[in-house]
Amino acid sequence: MKRLGILISGRGSNFEAIAENVASGALGVLGVEIAVVISNRAEARGLEAALARGMNAVCLPSKGLDREVYDRMLVAELHKHDVDLVCLAGFMRLLSAGFIREFPNRILNIHPSLLPAFPGLDAQHQALAHGVKITGCTVHFVDEDLDAGPIVIQAAVPVLDDDTEETLSARILKQEHRIYAEAIGIVIAGKYRVEGRRVLLT
Amino acid sequence: MKRLGILISGRGSNFEAIAENVASGALGVLGVEIAVVISNRAEARGLEAALARGMNAVCLPSKGLDREVYDRMLVAELHKHDVDLVCLAGFMRLLSAGFIREFPNRILNIHPSLLPAFPGLDAQHQALAHGVKITGCTVHFVDEDLDAGPIVIQAAVPVLDDDTEETLSARILKQEHRIYAEAIGIVIAGKYRVEGRRVLLT
Repeated sequence: MKRLGILISGRGSNFEAIAENVASGALGVLGVEIAVVISNRAEARGLEAALARGMNAVCLPSKGLDREVYDRMLVAELHKHDVDLVCLAGFMRLLSAGFIREFPNRILNIHPSLLPAFPGLDAQHQALAHGVKITGCTVHFVDEDLDAGPIVIQAAVPVLDDDTEETLSARILKQEHRIYAEAIGIVIAGKYRVEGRRVLLT
Repeated sequence: MKRLGILISGRGSNFEAIAENVASGALGVLGVEIAVVISNRAEARGLEAALARGMNAVCLPSKGLDREVYDRMLVAELHKHDVDLVCLAGFMRLLSAGFIREFPNRILNIHPSLLPAFPGLDAQHQALAHGVKITGCTVHFVDEDLDAGPIVIQAAVPVLDDDTEETLSARILKQEHRIYAEAIGIVIAGKYRVEGRRVLLT
C-alpha cells in the first residue's frame, strides 16, 4: 500500500509538503508515490503545483452536484489511479458514507487545532477568540462526522499575545507539514492498531 | 492584593504546591500569603496538610446545604480572613453567581485538560478515551459556567501509548503544580488585562 490520492480545494500547501517528503524524505524511502492530485475547484493553485511536479492532476468540479453523485465520481477517479490511501489537504467538503466505505481506515485529514477543540471552519480564529494559550494541529482518520475520526498524531503550538490569525496560522502550518508526512508514514507502513478511538503504534 | 483563600475537597496537591511556592518560590518573593484553606469535606487530607503547615484550616461541610446558603457561608469565611484571591484546588462544587460577584476576576481554578477540550469530571479519562495525543492543564478565571472562564496559562502534556489514567494524571499534575503558582503570580502582580476571552500579559 503505497499510492496516495490527494484531495485539495485550494493552495494545497500540505500537498506540497507531502510531495517534498516523497521526493526527498522518509516517505520516499518507504516507496510512497503520489498517484493523483484531485481538486473540486478549478482555481485551486495546488493543481498547477501538481502539474509543475509532473504529477497527475485532475479537476473534478463539485459545484451543483449532489454529494453522493460527486463522491462516486471521486471514488472512480481514485480507483482509476490505484490509490491506496486518500489524504485530504484542505479539501473543503464532507465525504459521504459511501465514499468512506470505499476506503476503510484509508482516509486521512489534517486539521489546524488540537481536536476535539475547535472543529470546523476557521479553527485558528476560534482558538484566538477563545483565548487558549496552546493550540496545534491534528492528523486523524476520516469518518462520517466532521473532524472526528481516530487521531494519529497531534502537535502543540503556542498562541502568543500578539498573534493575529495570520501569524498563528503560519506557526501551526509548519507543524502541519511535519506531522502529516509522519502520519502518512505510520499508516503506509501499517505500524499501528486502533483500539476504540485510540491509534496506538505497534 | 496578596492574601490567598484556597478551597479544596480532597488531598489538595495543588494547595501544597502553592504553599511550597509561597514558602520558597516566586510567590513568596511577591509577598503572597495563604490566609485560609477551606474544605467542604471534613475528610479532605489537604486540611491536615494545612494544619501541619501552621495555616488557618477551616472545614465548612456543604452536604445537604442549598448552594446559595453554602456559598454565603464560604464568602463570609473568606472575607473574615481578608482574602484577595480565591484559588480552587480540587474544589468539587460549582460556585453560585452570588459567590462570583463577591470576587470579580478574583477566582482561579485549575483543570487537568487543555480547555475547552474535556471539561467536567474525569478529564484525564476523557482524554484517553478520545485518543488525543496531547492533553494538558489550564488555569482559568472562574465564571458561572463549568470550566469556562478566561484562560490565564495552559501547559501541554503528551499522552503516551501505554498510559493509564494514573500515569497520565501524574504527568499532568507536575505541570499543574508549575502553572498554578505562575498564574497566581501574574494575577497577584496585576500584570495582565482581559480582552474578550483573552488574558494578555502587560
